[in-house]
Amino acid sequence: MSKLLNDAVGELAKLPSVGKRTALRLALHLLGEEPEEVAALAEALVRFRKEVRYCSRCNNISDDEVCPICQDPRRDRSTVCVVEQVGDVLSIEKTQQYNGLYHVLGGIISPMQGIGPSDLKIDLLVDNIARGEIKEVILAIGATVEGETTLFYIMRRLAQFPDLRITKIARGIGVGDEIEYANELTIAHALHNRIDVSRD
Amino acid sequence: MSKLLNDAVGELAKLPSVGKRTALRLALHLLGEEPEEVAALAEALVRFRKEVRYCSRCNNISDDEVCPICQDPRRDRSTVCVVEQVGDVLSIEKTQQYNGLYHVLGGIISPMQGIGPSDLKIDLLVDNIARGEIKEVILAIGATVEGETTLFYIMRRLAQFPDLRITKIARGIGVGDEIEYANELTIAHALHNRIDVSRD
Repeated sequence: MSKLLNDAVGELAKLPSVGKRTALRLALHLLGEEPEEVAALAEALVRFRKEVRYCSRCNNISDDEVCPICQDPRRDRSTVCVVEQVGDVLSIEKTQQYNGLYHVLGGIISPMQGIGPSDLKIDLLVDNIARGEIKEVILAIGATVEGETTLFYIMRRLAQFPDLRITKIARGIGVGDEIEYANELTIAHALHNRIDVSRD
Repeated sequence: MSKLLNDAVGELAKLPSVGKRTALRLALHLLGEEPEEVAALAEALVRFRKEVRYCSRCNNISDDEVCPICQDPRRDRSTVCVVEQVGDVLSIEKTQQYNGLYHVLGGIISPMQGIGPSDLKIDLLVDNIARGEIKEVILAIGATVEGETTLFYIMRRLAQFPDLRITKIARGIGVGDEIEYANELTIAHALHNRIDVSRD
């Protein structure tokens, strides 16, 4: 096989959920594109990775020193939603149900992967809160073991702010999911945090 | 959203069977990679598209003037398997059942897409055969309307070689497929080209 094709397939196959077969299909597709098209793809990826910056306030990716969300005067600056990664901000923004600011940890505490609290942007969060403008911190972190560890660690760090409201997002049955397929812990959470609908 | 991220997602989403969601997931994955890793991916794609060459004999992709298959002295030079595209060569090679040479047309006759016989490497095939070494041409072209048109056109062009054996790959029920799901034409072909197993 051509070494050039082999190299292209090898690199593409490193992408998540892209196997050798898909990589080959993608490479052969690129063969049918103009060289300028392929160069545009390559440049967009390299520039994105190389020039991407992180908001000095919330650690979200940003083209400027401070990201558009943190700069937006219409956002509620008294609420901060803490998330694991950039993709979570995009997911929450898509709901159009949240108007506060964000704080991107840049990962989650995972002893297995050697990621400790100091690898995450937790000090920056504490500094931001210390400035006094923030009244509520919403912890929007996955319901995994690592997520719960991270949650617990952050709560301990925030215990120094007695007037700060700390919340975490609800655990329960996902919309569209059947109870019979939910695990016991989820059902237990969903029962425990049941919502009063008497006056609905 | 960050313009850099937007550009990367937009370019990735142009790839076949990569939607906006997958493109975003791939881009955010690249964010977690070292810049050198991303540069290596980009360079492999650009180099592949820019520097790829086609074998002057069989039109397969090649790093050299003549591809490794055409150069290989152990291959049977009297048989040529005609295929639509580079990927077909790889598929057939993987079976390890074929030891002849190939000829890559580089497409298929498709009036709908404005691809005529002159857009394909058919003259090169005729020239190769005219040299006299080739005894059999196997037409390994898809069983579509375009494929049949291409087959018919090539057969007409090869009629000038009275001693040349021309074959096409068998149409029939795919291995692992059930008869009840095969279409009528496939079943008709499979019946018509039935194989004598009396002496098996």
